[in-house]
Amino acid sequence: MRQALREAERAYAAGEIPIGAVVAFTKTGQIIGRGHNQTEQLRDVTAHAEMLALTAAANFLGNKYLHDCTLYVTVEPCVMCAGATAWAQVPRVVYGTPEPKVGYSRHGQLLHPRCQVVQGVLAQECAALMQRFFAERRR
Amino acid sequence: MRQALREAERAYAAGEIPIGAVVAFTKTGQIIGRGHNQTEQLRDVTAHAEMLALTAAANFLGNKYLHDCTLYVTVEPCVMCAGATAWAQVPRVVYGTPEPKVGYSRHGQLLHPRCQVVQGVLAQECAALMQRFFAERRR
Repeated sequence: MRQALREAERAYAAGEIPIGAVVAFTKTGQIIGRGHNQTEQLRDVTAHAEMLALTAAANFLGNKYLHDCTLYVTVEPCVMCAGATAWAQVPRVVYGTPEPKVGYSRHGQLLHPRCQVVQGVLAQECAALMQRFFAERRR
Repeated sequence: MRQALREAERAYAAGEIPIGAVVAFTKTGQIIGRGHNQTEQLRDVTAHAEMLALTAAANFLGNKYLHDCTLYVTVEPCVMCAGATAWAQVPRVVYGTPEPKVGYSRHGQLLHPRCQVVQGVLAQECAALMQRFFAERRR
């Protein structure tokens, strides 16, 4: 999650909503995909941190299924990213801070049926970065 | 929708689940983004027809919001694509055949709150192409 936070900081530095993600092998922790939110830079709503990290990991493996992987993301995924995570059959998702407004979980179970979810990891740091971004934006 | 079907036929010819999509200006009908399912070729679950068409349209406009556009897609979008359509604030979605198993609509309202949905356009042709693909696969 420290690495996902580092990705979020890259988004922050680029003026993007600061969300970061990495995909790692669950057993070894080796990172095989990274992404930070780039929706403004790329002018593309699909360029969420998770989407970029999932695509990068699939490219690394040469396989669209990420069966032995964990997705770490600083903020609860949205509906789109939850759907992508389900298609990739990611068996484990770890996220930092919940996102009550646009997080997937208010729509029920959108992840893969066998996906294990861990939330609240480094939640304060993940949330603080988001709060700092939006506070600065309001100024 | 004829153009979306043509995209679906391109997916079919490439051995992909035959789903196609186009994004067009609602008023003029000018097509500004196209996509056909490429998840096998690209080994990437995010390469759905709709996602590729949305990204292409945003690139064309230089704007991530597709306010004056209609998304035409041969099959009911999945959760991921519905989420992307919501983020892009697409105000109108036209699809061919419903997809009871993995379509977004069984999860409730995942599109933009003001999105108008039209279904059943060229439904028979859209469904027939899917049925032909899966029948051949079973053989």
